Amino acid sequence: MRTSPLLEQLIDALRCLPGVGPKSAQRMAFHLLQRERQGGLKLADTLNRAMTDIGHCQECRTFTEDDVCHICKNPKRRENGQLCVVESPADISAVEATGMFSGRYFVLMGHLSPLDGIGPGDIGLDIFDYRLQQGDITEVILATNPTVEGEATAHYIADLCQAHQVSASRIAHGVPVGGELELVDGTTLSHSLLGRQRIN
Amino acid sequence: MRTSPLLEQLIDALRCLPGVGPKSAQRMAFHLLQRERQGGLKLADTLNRAMTDIGHCQECRTFTEDDVCHICKNPKRRENGQLCVVESPADISAVEATGMFSGRYFVLMGHLSPLDGIGPGDIGLDIFDYRLQQGDITEVILATNPTVEGEATAHYIADLCQAHQVSASRIAHGVPVGGELELVDGTTLSHSLLGRQRIN
Repeated sequence: MRTSPLLEQLIDALRCLPGVGPKSAQRMAFHLLQRERQGGLKLADTLNRAMTDIGHCQECRTFTEDDVCHICKNPKRRENGQLCVVESPADISAVEATGMFSGRYFVLMGHLSPLDGIGPGDIGLDIFDYRLQQGDITEVILATNPTVEGEATAHYIADLCQAHQVSASRIAHGVPVGGELELVDGTTLSHSLLGRQRIN
Repeated sequence: MRTSPLLEQLIDALRCLPGVGPKSAQRMAFHLLQRERQGGLKLADTLNRAMTDIGHCQECRTFTEDDVCHICKNPKRRENGQLCVVESPADISAVEATGMFSGRYFVLMGHLSPLDGIGPGDIGLDIFDYRLQQGDITEVILATNPTVEGEATAHYIADLCQAHQVSASRIAHGVPVGGELELVDGTTLSHSLLGRQRIN
């Protein structure tokens, strides 16, 4: 028996967060009540606004509270004709963190998966097709995950690009920088050998 | 550069939770936006109500949204003259989970720590003193943490109890059940030897 039904509800509600079980939820609730009431109130407000206001960018489908996201709006990014196709908005953060890409993105919000009934329309490829027709995209970089579904999705999109005579490239697979060769799995090493580049 | 300032704010606000760094906060935000909008809204509402409405029980000082918590209200718990003194509301959950205690609690919300300027008044010992005066408490069980501060606090409270001629006991320290003797630290083992009990 707990001392307060509302506290119980809070512990329960916190469990909707990924990786938070009953023990962590209890710890979070007590921490907020004891030391972070202001932070808790601010989180409640931000959470409420975010869940209500954040939708998808009309151009790249990533999360944004505006019609068009900050990256798609940026005129410098528009000048660059590159379009990087990723599976999720988190992947945009990862690519942005490299600082190596200055074009725009297209977020699939998943990958093709016929067995789960996820077809081209469900991952926004109709919008993607429309964007290719507009003619301002000169290169599509396929940065879907290196999984079976990710590869299949990349192949499908590469075919779409070919139909519109837009060049498409796939990000390189190979040995991670800083890794040790003997610890790398066979498939990755095979890709690494096939994708070898001349240095002289 | 992120795609949305509100998303950035959400990731920032989530970091007020204990053990949540930038990576986990981002994962939580994306998870809520992609799969748990309803859960997120419910969490926002519960969090808001909990941070605003939850105060302290007038009798035992634990967290509750009422004047007096469910345990203190329970007449069966009142009949039993035992009072278990713990450091935090989380400790109540731990003792309740054993199902071995049917009395009431008193929560210190900390421990005596003269160096940090935390004296008897800061851990509610004035309220505790008042409760002892009322005469319905027959035994005080000291379940503060087995740390230096917890022990000092327990000693202090035991002296208070003696002044009011109420018997006080300390929970047993010893080898954890299911543990292996060779892995137990020396201090615990010393306590375990000193606190040995006759079995015939």
